[in-house]
Amino acid sequence: MNTQLLQHIKWNNDGLIAAIAQDCNSGRVLMMAWMNAESLQLSIDSGDAVYWSRSRGKLWRKGESSGNVQKIRSMALDCDGDTLLIQVEQLGGIACHTGRQSCFYRTLSEGDWKITEKVLKDPATMYQHVEKA
Amino acid sequence: MNTQLLQHIKWNNDGLIAAIAQDCNSGRVLMMAWMNAESLQLSIDSGDAVYWSRSRGKLWRKGESSGNVQKIRSMALDCDGDTLLIQVEQLGGIACHTGRQSCFYRTLSEGDWKITEKVLKDPATMYQHVEKA
Repeated sequence: MNTQLLQHIKWNNDGLIAAIAQDCNSGRVLMMAWMNAESLQLSIDSGDAVYWSRSRGKLWRKGESSGNVQKIRSMALDCDGDTLLIQVEQLGGIACHTGRQSCFYRTLSEGDWKITEKVLKDPATMYQHVEKA
Repeated sequence: MNTQLLQHIKWNNDGLIAAIAQDCNSGRVLMMAWMNAESLQLSIDSGDAVYWSRSRGKLWRKGESSGNVQKIRSMALDCDGDTLLIQVEQLGGIACHTGRQSCFYRTLSEGDWKITEKVLKDPATMYQHVEKA
């Protein structure tokens, strides 16, 4: 463990930090997920984004089933130390488990959320095994 | 309250949703903060970003002291319904309470966080009153 690096992080009560993944080429914000100390260290060491899945309660190597791995190009910490911004190269061009480029595919319009982004790949064919954020 | 809009949101145990503010012109991710139902509704109704300050336990009208208001251009909800991505026009060009454009001004380099963004305005002159995320 790199204690120098980790000591600046303000973990929440569950020992997690929010991590925003941004496409380093398009600037598109792809998703927001969570990391614990282990997943952050694994991300740094491997260069591939590894999150902590709160729903599954285990490490989540992004793209382990779909192949949509996120190659980390740089990482920044915010002023409060409780959010990471990760610039990634999104392999496959798909970050969302619905088969869309970004998880932020519902846009506020006339008082409700409208789907404004198309599915690039059918999730049924995208996963060898079930993967869900 | 717009219940149709709010029912798609998955509030956390504290009744909050994460909100990422992205500069609609540069694509720069500026900050991540939190909203409760009231602050989200106020944001939508007013067109200016209103957050919930967890540290102060009250509504936080971004820029109320500094003048660095965020004019909302669009808003998107992620697949899980627990994170908002808000495209904003950042008045004053400064989102961070440290006087920097973005809160993500510390970049990982050689095993530690290095400050890679300059202060555009001294916080001492930026606030009429104390404002802190």
